[in-house]
Amino acid sequence: MQNLNKNSKPKHIVLTSHPSRFGPKPIAIHWGENEPSKRGPVIATCTNPAHRNVIGTHAGSYAVYRALAVAGGKLQSSHRADLTNTSPTEKIGPHPSWGDGEKIVSLDPFGAIVGDVFADFYERGYDIRPTIAITKAHINMPELQAAIAAGRLPVDGKIVKEGGDLVVTKAAIEPVWFLPGIAKRFGVEESLLRRTLFEQTGGMFPELVTRSDLKVFLPPIGGMTVYIFGDISAISDRSKSVAVRVHDECNGSDVFGSDICTCRPYLVHGIEVCLQMAQSGGVGIIVYFRKEGRALGEVTKFLVYNARKRQEGGDRADAYFTRTECVAGVQDMRFQELMPDVLHWLGITKIDRLVSMSDMKYNAIVNSGIEVIERVAIPEELIPPDAQVEIAAKKAAGYYTVGEVPDGEMLTEIVGRNLI
Amino acid sequence: MQNLNKNSKPKHIVLTSHPSRFGPKPIAIHWGENEPSKRGPVIATCTNPAHRNVIGTHAGSYAVYRALAVAGGKLQSSHRADLTNTSPTEKIGPHPSWGDGEKIVSLDPFGAIVGDVFADFYERGYDIRPTIAITKAHINMPELQAAIAAGRLPVDGKIVKEGGDLVVTKAAIEPVWFLPGIAKRFGVEESLLRRTLFEQTGGMFPELVTRSDLKVFLPPIGGMTVYIFGDISAISDRSKSVAVRVHDECNGSDVFGSDICTCRPYLVHGIEVCLQMAQSGGVGIIVYFRKEGRALGEVTKFLVYNARKRQEGGDRADAYFTRTECVAGVQDMRFQELMPDVLHWLGITKIDRLVSMSDMKYNAIVNSGIEVIERVAIPEELIPPDAQVEIAAKKAAGYYTVGEVPDGEMLTEIVGRNLI
Repeated sequence: MQNLNKNSKPKHIVLTSHPSRFGPKPIAIHWGENEPSKRGPVIATCTNPAHRNVIGTHAGSYAVYRALAVAGGKLQSSHRADLTNTSPTEKIGPHPSWGDGEKIVSLDPFGAIVGDVFADFYERGYDIRPTIAITKAHINMPELQAAIAAGRLPVDGKIVKEGGDLVVTKAAIEPVWFLPGIAKRFGVEESLLRRTLFEQTGGMFPELVTRSDLKVFLPPIGGMTVYIFGDISAISDRSKSVAVRVHDECNGSDVFGSDICTCRPYLVHGIEVCLQMAQSGGVGIIVYFRKEGRALGEVTKFLVYNARKRQEGGDRADAYFTRTECVAGVQDMRFQELMPDVLHWLGITKIDRLVSMSDMKYNAIVNSGIEVIERVAIPEELIPPDAQVEIAAKKAAGYYTVGEVPDGEMLTEIVGRNLI
Repeated sequence: MQNLNKNSKPKHIVLTSHPSRFGPKPIAIHWGENEPSKRGPVIATCTNPAHRNVIGTHAGSYAVYRALAVAGGKLQSSHRADLTNTSPTEKIGPHPSWGDGEKIVSLDPFGAIVGDVFADFYERGYDIRPTIAITKAHINMPELQAAIAAGRLPVDGKIVKEGGDLVVTKAAIEPVWFLPGIAKRFGVEESLLRRTLFEQTGGMFPELVTRSDLKVFLPPIGGMTVYIFGDISAISDRSKSVAVRVHDECNGSDVFGSDICTCRPYLVHGIEVCLQMAQSGGVGIIVYFRKEGRALGEVTKFLVYNARKRQEGGDRADAYFTRTECVAGVQDMRFQELMPDVLHWLGITKIDRLVSMSDMKYNAIVNSGIEVIERVAIPEELIPPDAQVEIAAKKAAGYYTVGEVPDGEMLTEIVGRNLI
């Protein structure tokens, strides 16, 4: 492939911290307007810097790889996506929540339909990219084949196919943060949020502190994926039933089946509950959030595993959270406060079966105005032996359970495997 | 929990683009020195900005969540990790490659043992964090239970346990980029690399262009995880056999079992090959790279799925790569040029069985000086029907196969499922 940059002469570098170097006033974004034309498009591409009206760019952390592609001469910096045939396979929204500037602050509700609602901007030369993509797929998981074989999931030929294929609509969503809304969600001043995001990332995006006129930030983090089983129109129909699992990534369990936690077994159980709901005329939704190791990352997670297994008395439920705090300074960085946004984007106002025991998730959902009818705990037989430490510690800390809440003495007695 | 920041008075903001505001000259990093004391530590924490000697900070993209934790008053910005009991469960290295500044440019070879080799810096008050963590685990995957039941994997009680538990050593690795080495790997000037990383991320880290004295960059991207089965000392022992699969993340298949690609089936097959190698006295290694959708991200991936399935003539092998290029401007952004670094960190000089058909991966590994004896294709029976489009297109483009390489006419005839 031709190297597109090798011979290009260096041009003047424009530092983004100097607003005067920018072009004319960028297109305004009026977050929370329900008319897309009034709300305005998110313009985060780098093809024409003068058009940009946000901080950051598309594809979350993969923007760094895009930069490598340009540096290496594999991609022209002026490349514009040919979006032919890419539009959503299913219509989601608009919902009343899309016009509520406080219900959704961490994604762009119009992100999947920019090609339609901002058609006039494309004609005027603006390069607007979708931040949400919706497609259809067939998936197949061995544990659910087992559920079919055991008679818990009948083959209906439509949602559950012969051979165990499951029909699903899925959506990938990039983070798009409205900074005043994020600040309000955390109860801090916007200026403090901006300053801390700048300082505590080692100085990422000075515009966070120099460009208070730019209210929208596309952070270089992973986003989320939505899996929808069954009738999409049932999502916002209060006469129909909705099952939801909001799942935070755990690569070690979700992919490799590590036995120290309940992540994959609970995810699979969530899908089974979703499929049962879909087969009985409702809809089931899994949201998969890229928040590895409680959003502490996997290096911290493994350091904590070692500290847990090596501490005096071994890996004990009563010291489960303490070891994370020692290493990371906090027990958890997932910030469930932002999690319900995707549920509001989907138009959910009521969850009949919430497949999660987390009190943090439950509180965030209920506090955001969504009714929760029933909470579904992980079935006991799905908990790997070494994950009893985790589940007991979480129950004692407030996780939902129909069974006994372990007391202090019980917690000291629940001990996991050592490192050998 | 106490909000630690709410009442703190705003202080002067130091813009990182102005080097004069920094403290005294930072500790030098002499990349490629094999003596840690000569190499110098990577100091990327924000607890004392004057000590920092790199661009960016720890935890890849999760630094953004850490910043949220500080902004929300849940974490003190001065928090230092208590690293008691967190050191590696297994010794990896040092290897001769650690002292070769060109063999490893995208991770810190000393990242797992900073607590040992930089002990004197800790005493002098420097806050140095591991960029690699090594632990032990038991994993269990339904497909491998099936392999045990089918007699392909005997239970040995040590590597494969009764009940199908598999014993593994695993390492999580954060990206640490030596910018001159990265530039050389891609054959571009360091200044062009720095400038493009800055501009094409929408202005992330002005220090990339203003601080040419800082040669090391911790990018806010996902890292990699290494799974080692069997005898670790066999990795660098040329009389022993080594199996390797280098796997790039595909959440839709790896976790959910999407049938449009071969990712999870090939990963599982790779683990089976690794286990067989471990059981016969060698060692098997899986490296899992966080490069979703060929490092284009999942939004782009789903847009491409729609474009493939809706194009005239349906999802055809002959148009497989074209549709990605239309949307993304390139076929692939994974940059396998950096991938072999982790193999050199492990001390690999020879791979007896490479479980990958990718010519890009093979070439990168061989060009980095590692001998490859045998390449292992995915068994035909593991390819989902709808993934025939992908595998045929890849074979035609140069992927390894023992079978027939499809020609142009065959490619037009291999058509996948439509969107309905």
